[in-house]
Amino acid sequence: MAKLQHVIEAQQFTLPLIHELFQTADQMEKILERGGTLDYQNKIMASLFYAPSTRTRFSFESAMYRLGGKVISTEQAHLFSSVIGGETLEDTIRVVSNFCDVIVLRHTEVGAAKRASFVSSVPIINAGDGKGGQHPTQALLDLYTIYKELGYIDGLKIAFVGDLEQGRTVRSLAYLLGKFERVMLYFIAPDFLQIREDIQDYLTRHNVWFTLESELNKIISEVDVIYVTRIERERFGDKADIYEETVKNYFIDRETISKMKEKAIIMHPLPRLNEISPDVDSDPRAVYFRQTKNGLLIRMALLTMVL
Amino acid sequence: MAKLQHVIEAQQFTLPLIHELFQTADQMEKILERGGTLDYQNKIMASLFYAPSTRTRFSFESAMYRLGGKVISTEQAHLFSSVIGGETLEDTIRVVSNFCDVIVLRHTEVGAAKRASFVSSVPIINAGDGKGGQHPTQALLDLYTIYKELGYIDGLKIAFVGDLEQGRTVRSLAYLLGKFERVMLYFIAPDFLQIREDIQDYLTRHNVWFTLESELNKIISEVDVIYVTRIERERFGDKADIYEETVKNYFIDRETISKMKEKAIIMHPLPRLNEISPDVDSDPRAVYFRQTKNGLLIRMALLTMVL
Amino acid sequence: MAKLQHVIEAQQFTLPLIHELFQTADQMEKILERGGTLDYQNKIMASLFYAPSTRTRFSFESAMYRLGGKVISTEQAHLFSSVIGGETLEDTIRVVSNFCDVIVLRHTEVGAAKRASFVSSVPIINAGDGKGGQHPTQALLDLYTIYKELGYIDGLKIAFVGDLEQGRTVRSLAYLLGKFERVMLYFIAPDFLQIREDIQDYLTRHNVWFTLESELNKIISEVDVIYVTRIERERFGDKADIYEETVKNYFIDRETISKMKEKAIIMHPLPRLNEISPDVDSDPRAVYFRQTKNGLLIRMALLTMVL
Repeated sequence: MAKLQHVIEAQQFTLPLIHELFQTADQMEKILERGGTLDYQNKIMASLFYAPSTRTRFSFESAMYRLGGKVISTEQAHLFSSVIGGETLEDTIRVVSNFCDVIVLRHTEVGAAKRASFVSSVPIINAGDGKGGQHPTQALLDLYTIYKELGYIDGLKIAFVGDLEQGRTVRSLAYLLGKFERVMLYFIAPDFLQIREDIQDYLTRHNVWFTLESELNKIISEVDVIYVTRIERERFGDKADIYEETVKNYFIDRETISKMKEKAIIMHPLPRLNEISPDVDSDPRAVYFRQTKNGLLIRMALLTMVL
Repeated sequence: MAKLQHVIEAQQFTLPLIHELFQTADQMEKILERGGTLDYQNKIMASLFYAPSTRTRFSFESAMYRLGGKVISTEQAHLFSSVIGGETLEDTIRVVSNFCDVIVLRHTEVGAAKRASFVSSVPIINAGDGKGGQHPTQALLDLYTIYKELGYIDGLKIAFVGDLEQGRTVRSLAYLLGKFERVMLYFIAPDFLQIREDIQDYLTRHNVWFTLESELNKIISEVDVIYVTRIERERFGDKADIYEETVKNYFIDRETISKMKEKAIIMHPLPRLNEISPDVDSDPRAVYFRQTKNGLLIRMALLTMVL
Repeated sequence: MAKLQHVIEAQQFTLPLIHELFQTADQMEKILERGGTLDYQNKIMASLFYAPSTRTRFSFESAMYRLGGKVISTEQAHLFSSVIGGETLEDTIRVVSNFCDVIVLRHTEVGAAKRASFVSSVPIINAGDGKGGQHPTQALLDLYTIYKELGYIDGLKIAFVGDLEQGRTVRSLAYLLGKFERVMLYFIAPDFLQIREDIQDYLTRHNVWFTLESELNKIISEVDVIYVTRIERERFGDKADIYEETVKNYFIDRETISKMKEKAIIMHPLPRLNEISPDVDSDPRAVYFRQTKNGLLIRMALLTMVL
């Protein structure tokens, strides 16, 4: 098994490493069905969260416990530097790495995980660093969900819908999809929320086919994956009418999904606000709650790979 | 052993189920004396608290650890829905049930636990839902304390003292006591804090003898159990004098207990404010700290019954 | 092995007990190298913190997990008494001691740990009680660090630098050092931040040699240990210039350490603000991050001694 040292950004993950990760995640599912393992019962994971993200924290902590390990945990890591003047992230990491075998770090600053990895004596896993930063385990679990639900990734048509401009999830996933053969990416958003040029440039450089659209209806019946993202009211400022129109245009309800391919899937990173109607939940194509379960498997796999 | 699916409200507990629960709790005490068990070491409990209640949370988490299990925990579950617009309880439960084998839910809204049970793929245990809602494990541990201290429940004379109007503990316990034979209930409170009519109607319908009183002294020497509840200053608004008179009238001190039966017991759900004098603590009839221990046993028993 | 009942204050620790503690800590290092032990897997530690101190909490929780034990934890223990009027510390301790085998208590009031020990049915370990109170495990880990790095304590020359007036760490450590033979203590601070008279009196009574200085340069080349403490801006009020001069005078950089003995060590309780230059970190004489690791060993040792 390849030894990962740290999990900092999506860019680290080559195709062979991705395949190995997915195979490990598949094994984790079997381990989970047998009730977990106690193999890691002398290992301690530290959840070092500088801002609360209970969803992500629970996912990692459950993963560690299913592996038999232990967890020390804070969602108030900023208090390490509560003294006037503050403690540097580097000092905190040097201290915490004495107490554990792996650190899961959530931070508010872009690049924090990389900085932590430079001084840590134990592996760092980036659980999100800043709005414009990375959240590689989310991108990996999204990719794994597509692979697991559809069986392959090469050649798939994948639509991203909603606020694509700021979503680090979409950005990282688009990056990873670019490594596969013949994928076709549809970015569906109003102009001012479209995917940024850096990702477009990256895809162009790597000969990945993509298109920018504003209407979902045009492509709904063609694509294999619809990846829906949260549309936050605050992003629209005083344009209340545009906000409401956007929500309405991209709303996924039973009528929308009636136009989808039978084998297509609907994904969402959660929490959802009002992008998807609850009466879609029972449709087999709605995989967003299964995404959560896949997140557990991917995090178990990553923990075994770094430990 | 009967398989409980969820623990939502006191009303679920029939007499046979109560007896089975108490027998299981008795076994748990033996297990505890032997240092706990590792039988549940591949099980994870999620403490999902929408408001802090460290006392209740510690009791459940200690119970799970004594069974060998693991715990993921938050007292800030409201942050699951911190995004503008919020995530529904239902979505949160669907997500969290992927990470664990049982959810202990504390919520601020009446009926939350029932709603959670409709969508959860794992058992839900209600650890309190709203001021006017249910807190069934507290009622069960109170009932178990009476049973354990006195050996039986049928025919007992039980006084409730203090603020009976809002106390969900008293309401649920009165409900459960109504299932036993020939119990006699004394509700001792000032008029405006008396037990509500819905409970009175329930007791009348089930032919349970009860009386409403305002003076504790009248019945102090007759009863087998005095269940004291917290009298909160804020409930009296600007009636400071009535507040002080009430506290004084119902205050339990050495003089009060000198009038009690030798075998009677004094209970309190804790925390106490100034209802009971600390110099009563050492009296063998003061069982309120043993109640806490019994809570641990009942929660261990409930966990084994749902898992 | 001597049975400790509670760990409340530095004063409890006689020379024989200190030696036994250090031997136990040495054994803990070996256990840690083997990946910890599961000997205490049926024991529960409660972290009962009335104010957050994640550094100390993580250290204790990691120690308990390395011993195989379990942990229930709160950094909001004040919420036990959130009800208007409050619950006494004594009542909270009586409740919590039903849920665990040892309580690690952090409190904001001087003397809280001692009060807790009077009513607890399980051992209490003081993890800091008030600014002017005790933090005995910190003092013990500091002492252990000197012993471990230098091999002995008798006859050492030890300088304390910075804000010595309020630092409970320095006060407790000076107290413990007073038990050893022929130590020489140098207290380096501006007048208004000098060590208080009570400690000076104690040292005089016990015939411990000490001197008060304001300049670090005078003694830098003589001493075996430089114990640097945090200099907080707020302690200087409106004397911004004195603050800056103090920081500058006591700043430890590569030039400072070039004057130190080759075998001397630099300690700091952490977090540091701007007392030590980061480019000193890689010098083998900078032991402040190893102090953290020693803290883990001392806490493992104390846990085994009380359990």
